[in-house]
Amino acid sequence: MKFNFTTANRIIFGEGTISSLKEIVECYGKKVLIIKGKEKPDPAYFFSICKESNLEWVEFIVFNEPNIETINRAVEVGRKENCEFVIGFGGGSVIDTGKAVAALLNNEGSLLDYLEVVGKGNPLKNRSKPYIAIPTTAGTGSEVTTNAVIAVEEKKVKVSMRNAFLLPDVAIVDPELTYEVPKNITASTGMDALTQVLEPYVSRNHNQMVDLFCREGIPIGSSYLLRAWKDGSDSEARRKMAWVSLLGGLALANAKLGAVHGFAGPIGGMFHVPHGSVCAALLPSVFFVNVKALSNRGNNMEIISRYSDIAKWITGNEDANISEGVEWLKDLAKKINIPRLSELGIKKTDFPAIIEKSKNSSSMKGNPILLTDNELEEILELSY
Amino acid sequence: MKFNFTTANRIIFGEGTISSLKEIVECYGKKVLIIKGKEKPDPAYFFSICKESNLEWVEFIVFNEPNIETINRAVEVGRKENCEFVIGFGGGSVIDTGKAVAALLNNEGSLLDYLEVVGKGNPLKNRSKPYIAIPTTAGTGSEVTTNAVIAVEEKKVKVSMRNAFLLPDVAIVDPELTYEVPKNITASTGMDALTQVLEPYVSRNHNQMVDLFCREGIPIGSSYLLRAWKDGSDSEARRKMAWVSLLGGLALANAKLGAVHGFAGPIGGMFHVPHGSVCAALLPSVFFVNVKALSNRGNNMEIISRYSDIAKWITGNEDANISEGVEWLKDLAKKINIPRLSELGIKKTDFPAIIEKSKNSSSMKGNPILLTDNELEEILELSY
Repeated sequence: MKFNFTTANRIIFGEGTISSLKEIVECYGKKVLIIKGKEKPDPAYFFSICKESNLEWVEFIVFNEPNIETINRAVEVGRKENCEFVIGFGGGSVIDTGKAVAALLNNEGSLLDYLEVVGKGNPLKNRSKPYIAIPTTAGTGSEVTTNAVIAVEEKKVKVSMRNAFLLPDVAIVDPELTYEVPKNITASTGMDALTQVLEPYVSRNHNQMVDLFCREGIPIGSSYLLRAWKDGSDSEARRKMAWVSLLGGLALANAKLGAVHGFAGPIGGMFHVPHGSVCAALLPSVFFVNVKALSNRGNNMEIISRYSDIAKWITGNEDANISEGVEWLKDLAKKINIPRLSELGIKKTDFPAIIEKSKNSSSMKGNPILLTDNELEEILELSY
Repeated sequence: MKFNFTTANRIIFGEGTISSLKEIVECYGKKVLIIKGKEKPDPAYFFSICKESNLEWVEFIVFNEPNIETINRAVEVGRKENCEFVIGFGGGSVIDTGKAVAALLNNEGSLLDYLEVVGKGNPLKNRSKPYIAIPTTAGTGSEVTTNAVIAVEEKKVKVSMRNAFLLPDVAIVDPELTYEVPKNITASTGMDALTQVLEPYVSRNHNQMVDLFCREGIPIGSSYLLRAWKDGSDSEARRKMAWVSLLGGLALANAKLGAVHGFAGPIGGMFHVPHGSVCAALLPSVFFVNVKALSNRGNNMEIISRYSDIAKWITGNEDANISEGVEWLKDLAKKINIPRLSELGIKKTDFPAIIEKSKNSSSMKGNPILLTDNELEEILELSY
């Protein structure tokens, strides 16, 4: 019954809420560093709001998942131009870039001074510059989490910069921004969102606050993802998936995740594959192997009953058992064309390296049970 | 489906979590202004943690509900002693005092410069000094709200200082601190907490985020308040009521309240009566008159069905109707010895003045329907 809940100071949700930006920026200054992706949505309306707000801005485009060089370059621009605050407008990569940049604009030095494992791991001394995060995909929930995932390409790993200072000051979640997201991105980001309400519900750190978000997000995410994928202009489905994505962010930031993300991080560092696709490929097998492991060892009825809840919620069938839940997840992944691990360019000979790296990942520590190497391998085999 | 959600950056909940103070204060400085009440709980353990944390502190005792003089005196102490941050340790009055004081320690001038209606109403320019709120009653939820209620005694009114900067940086909700709360305070603060999960659920500003907190808090609050009142050492009941109080704060800060609080504010300004007792005396009648008004005018089925939800949740009976809900609330108030308005020193000749003041209160604007003067009078009559 203990928990520690951290979130953005202010979350604004709903269709058209991007226009509230005008009123929000007033207290943050006149000169802003805008970080955005190269992709859709069309930013014309966004920039017209910036204009109406009499903002002066410098634009920085993020082309891929953030790496050390991208972030240092953006920080250089923000420092040179004396930007007073930061806006991130884009998918998870953009939002994460903005977090790291806003932090470094108020702290001396460069990114490597603050990264663990690959850098000096210094703690951030000062609060970040004010940061307004505006996600344009419904997936990562990064607008309300305390970490930024950064690729260290030469080492083929992804590392997290993690600090409560990284929380955006304001998160604006406007589902209209996701209307133009293409089918494959809707599929992978949506599966990421769904995973992020599922894993915290059974995580080792689950708690009554996070349960509220998961109990809301699991049935909604599983009902609406297929609809959003089939018809991107289905505004109700897009709204629901934006809500699930936000709930996932709130949940994961406060209860950690599990083996799906424990694997997905290292795999993402080793291969150029969409994060959500990896999650989706792994989700049913992790579900299956976790329940088997929990049943085989120890007194785990409370957590197993949570898997039963999930099976009922996702299938929408009060009598569904856990196996039916696993089948339902496999089926959903098939319907929205989620590739299997074998189709993502991963070879079986990569398994030992993946397992070795995954065992020590932060998310793996949230998994409800410590899995053996054999069990980890079984997950990869079943997802192949 | 739109909402705007604001809360403390960090909420820590659970038995014994007060000991986390040691780790938390590290990033806020060495010299702290401690604001506390004169009452229980015994602060020996609290001060031993402060000692272990190598804090240097100045203590300021709050004897009653905060008024302008109290707050200005506390600010003077904090400024003179160069306190780097503020801790509030006590009931709602203490927590609210801390909010106003932390704000003024980082903004020039005195309280009246920033109060609306009775003062100059200047906006706060700067963020507050860091503020850690530690409630010792389960009632107001003030540790996660953006306002501080301040009595202006010469005018017999209470005014709210309201600003997102007033949100505490950290809220530590440790149910153990409420074990020693006496029966009458458990009753009045508990009814306040219950009201604060009920009113936002039917407020004009209800939204899907706040619904999560209300749906959780209403059944729990109505099941456990009587238990906590009967046996103050019932740790499960105390924990549940601390949780409901927190949920109430999260709900009211993000969806406003309604006529119960619309009346309770002005009545509290005019008479020296416990806020929670006034809420409890009014709650069943407001429930009854609101539903009657909603049924008599307009197309209000959605909101009426929310009253049906409440009736089911509080009675624990899936078939309960709204009248049974009203009766259940009356019955609970009787069981825990909540006085009627007539027993609180209020005269019927005060009704016109109460109605006049209540009509313009901020909480009244959250009420699901605009009530006529006659309806407002009926509420007072029924609660008398």
